[in-house]
Amino acid sequence: MAIQLADLAVRYGCELQGDPDIEITGVGTLEAAGSDCISFLANKGYRKYLGTTRASAVILTEELSAECPVACLIADDPYLVYARIALELHPLPELKAGVHSSAVVAEGTVVPPSCEIAAGAVIGQKVEFGEGVFIGPNCVIADDVAIGSETRLVANVSIYSNVRIGVRCFLHAGVVIGSDGFGNAKSAQGWVKVPQVGGVIVGDDVEMGATTTIDRGAIGNTIIGNGVKLDNQVHIAHNVMVGDHTAIAGQCGVSGSSKIGARCVFGGQVAITGHVEIADDVYLMGRSIVTKSIKQPGVYSNVISVEEAGKWRRIAARIKRLDYMGKRLKSLEKLVRINKERSD
Amino acid sequence: MAIQLADLAVRYGCELQGDPDIEITGVGTLEAAGSDCISFLANKGYRKYLGTTRASAVILTEELSAECPVACLIADDPYLVYARIALELHPLPELKAGVHSSAVVAEGTVVPPSCEIAAGAVIGQKVEFGEGVFIGPNCVIADDVAIGSETRLVANVSIYSNVRIGVRCFLHAGVVIGSDGFGNAKSAQGWVKVPQVGGVIVGDDVEMGATTTIDRGAIGNTIIGNGVKLDNQVHIAHNVMVGDHTAIAGQCGVSGSSKIGARCVFGGQVAITGHVEIADDVYLMGRSIVTKSIKQPGVYSNVISVEEAGKWRRIAARIKRLDYMGKRLKSLEKLVRINKERSD
Amino acid sequence: MAIQLADLAVRYGCELQGDPDIEITGVGTLEAAGSDCISFLANKGYRKYLGTTRASAVILTEELSAECPVACLIADDPYLVYARIALELHPLPELKAGVHSSAVVAEGTVVPPSCEIAAGAVIGQKVEFGEGVFIGPNCVIADDVAIGSETRLVANVSIYSNVRIGVRCFLHAGVVIGSDGFGNAKSAQGWVKVPQVGGVIVGDDVEMGATTTIDRGAIGNTIIGNGVKLDNQVHIAHNVMVGDHTAIAGQCGVSGSSKIGARCVFGGQVAITGHVEIADDVYLMGRSIVTKSIKQPGVYSNVISVEEAGKWRRIAARIKRLDYMGKRLKSLEKLVRINKERSD
Repeated sequence: MAIQLADLAVRYGCELQGDPDIEITGVGTLEAAGSDCISFLANKGYRKYLGTTRASAVILTEELSAECPVACLIADDPYLVYARIALELHPLPELKAGVHSSAVVAEGTVVPPSCEIAAGAVIGQKVEFGEGVFIGPNCVIADDVAIGSETRLVANVSIYSNVRIGVRCFLHAGVVIGSDGFGNAKSAQGWVKVPQVGGVIVGDDVEMGATTTIDRGAIGNTIIGNGVKLDNQVHIAHNVMVGDHTAIAGQCGVSGSSKIGARCVFGGQVAITGHVEIADDVYLMGRSIVTKSIKQPGVYSNVISVEEAGKWRRIAARIKRLDYMGKRLKSLEKLVRINKERSD
Repeated sequence: MAIQLADLAVRYGCELQGDPDIEITGVGTLEAAGSDCISFLANKGYRKYLGTTRASAVILTEELSAECPVACLIADDPYLVYARIALELHPLPELKAGVHSSAVVAEGTVVPPSCEIAAGAVIGQKVEFGEGVFIGPNCVIADDVAIGSETRLVANVSIYSNVRIGVRCFLHAGVVIGSDGFGNAKSAQGWVKVPQVGGVIVGDDVEMGATTTIDRGAIGNTIIGNGVKLDNQVHIAHNVMVGDHTAIAGQCGVSGSSKIGARCVFGGQVAITGHVEIADDVYLMGRSIVTKSIKQPGVYSNVISVEEAGKWRRIAARIKRLDYMGKRLKSLEKLVRINKERSD
Repeated sequence: MAIQLADLAVRYGCELQGDPDIEITGVGTLEAAGSDCISFLANKGYRKYLGTTRASAVILTEELSAECPVACLIADDPYLVYARIALELHPLPELKAGVHSSAVVAEGTVVPPSCEIAAGAVIGQKVEFGEGVFIGPNCVIADDVAIGSETRLVANVSIYSNVRIGVRCFLHAGVVIGSDGFGNAKSAQGWVKVPQVGGVIVGDDVEMGATTTIDRGAIGNTIIGNGVKLDNQVHIAHNVMVGDHTAIAGQCGVSGSSKIGARCVFGGQVAITGHVEIADDVYLMGRSIVTKSIKQPGVYSNVISVEEAGKWRRIAARIKRLDYMGKRLKSLEKLVRINKERSD
């Protein structure tokens, strides 16, 4: 696909600097883009590559346009404009509509002709499909599932029963939705399983990264809001609610019944304990751990970055004796006050 | 299924308050349960919903029975009684015994007629099945595996050779058992793989959450005891032993050759280093890290909860200079003692 | 397979002590090895088992040879020699060359006769195979993938398009390579997906543990060097580069665009933030978090090990007031200096 730079400028509301007739066929980094490619400059760390770029055009802010050696599209948010242009140049592959001969679809489930059920997929009873759904190779869909239009499951995805997935979702390989939550009651003879009889509701425009797992509700539902983006290896426990447009990076875990607000952003490996509420617009730095509710929007952290191991050993030893240090400080304060009084 | 409240009271040894003829058909939360449902009150945080519940009956302690507006079952441990009643009302789905025409079973493996091998499952040679085993869609079982009666593998589960699984186990989608442990010997030319020639032994009544992975032993076996409950995305390395009835929450990792006691409970994202022993009845708070053996039962933690990022930055900077702070405190103590002596 | 001890000594350059005609057929631990087995002693913690071992021979250092009650091979690095001997005694199972009747191979993809494509595998178009490749049951390979000779994918592995994998790689069950990176641009209407148009290049002799996931590049490639060893549940984000012979233990996560040097070793659950560089030969203790580049080889850590929960609560409270403690120390220093001046 080729698009003229002038067309891109008009469609995405950018000021164009340079030849409007340039044909763009793909995207590339400032460093590596070849001719016919469009690049972007959003992170100033990459400004050093602008002067020598061989891209045909660059998306950047007005401030940097003077130093651009090639054509450019001037935008307030170059990364966002880049995303939209890249989506146009690299649309999702078209479906090969139909049910592969090696797929297994249970009786009573009707697959609309616009959907593709790939090789080896196994589909249960009473599964409802919207239009243009893609079920990738070797995916497994249990009974009583609903999958909205244009949603795609890449490969080896497992969906349990009583899961509803919205439209335009994208579930990467190995995703699991609807597994039992971790509910066990203690008895004298060991743990007794608490049946997990709820379901999962996934909103529209949700993306889930590879091997991310979403447990079903213990009684009610686990709920993933509209526009939520989950990275790889995220673990969402039973009865969690994730608010609309929240983005959660790789290997985060949210414990049972916690409620995450809208438009939150979590860095990687964050842990949220159970039964807490996180307000809207909370930003948690990577590896943060939240043990009680956060009521105010803002940025939160508890990260201590790595040190040379010998130095860290001394610090860690001090931390372990911090209570003792506090007591020493207190008695010193008392003593100094006495000394001061004496000398006064 | 409908059960009379009187029957439940008798079966589970509860005192009944209210109409014994009420028919219970399902479970629900205090907030959302409809009529014909039984609910429970175990966590006092939910007491506020008791007064307005529309459940037909509630399981609760004697202490709270006076304020229950509907019928109730009085129990010392309402959550445990709830679990047992819920299991009765929501039994596991019955198997459709037989081998699906798209499943592949190697020659020499005999599938008892009481088992279900679902679509797309691939079963190796010399696999031994108990009665009533369920192998879900697209599961893969290698050669020389034994799976005990009534054990269920949901979907897309992978079992390597020389793995023995007990009775009544429940393995969720994407579980992997028997993958090679991380054994590499350093050479001048890079890492040399250390063959992982051991196996895995999984006890009875074990549950494993979605995409949990258990490595085979390097030489001997990795051993998961009876009644062990593993949540999603747990990683158990080679030659680990997990004691009976231990419960490990999501995203925990146990490094090689460590031995976890019986009846332990680990919160999420806990890390256990290699070659350590954890006593019986150890409770590790979420995100704990254990670097040496724990010999006494008890509760352990090393969690620092999140702070507003600006405040945390100052704390983290202090932590990094803690060794220096300790030295300043010491010289101050010396100085104050000198001052004191002078002023005495 | 049986090998005479004398042959092993010659092949691996060890001094032999004892009967050269002993036939070795397998490996075992010092504690559990039976006759005909060879064992090794590399970790002095296991020295106590040497005196009573029933192994036919032991690989150990010269220093310990005097106390060995059975034959032995004397080596500078017993673990490395053990690895090599074990590989010889336990070679990888031979392939059953051919394409299983239930596997699906797209038109235009040619499978060399030396390869095995197991039951239920689904292979896309224009996939290039080297010789002796094993694609395990229910693996999914998308279009435009290249897989080098003797590489093995165990089961339920998912490979996206535009992934190149080197020779002699070993990918465990549930591995995902080529999933989209976590690229989202913020807009007033929510996140806009940034198409991930790069690929993944995996070097030779790479091993990946169960359910490890490698994202494709956003524009360029994600690159895994030669001889890299990744344990289970590792998450490698888009455009990461992992240097040759680096070993990364279970549940580590590397964020986007970071560059890991050669011969690094990461313990479990390590987190690397995005856009940083880690020098060659960096050793990160388990659970470390790296938030900025590490320019010097060495050992790094930020681990605080677990404490009894009551004690830890006091320490954590002190940590939270560390900034205040620092201020108190400073004013005390000022005051003591004043006192000292007065008393001087």
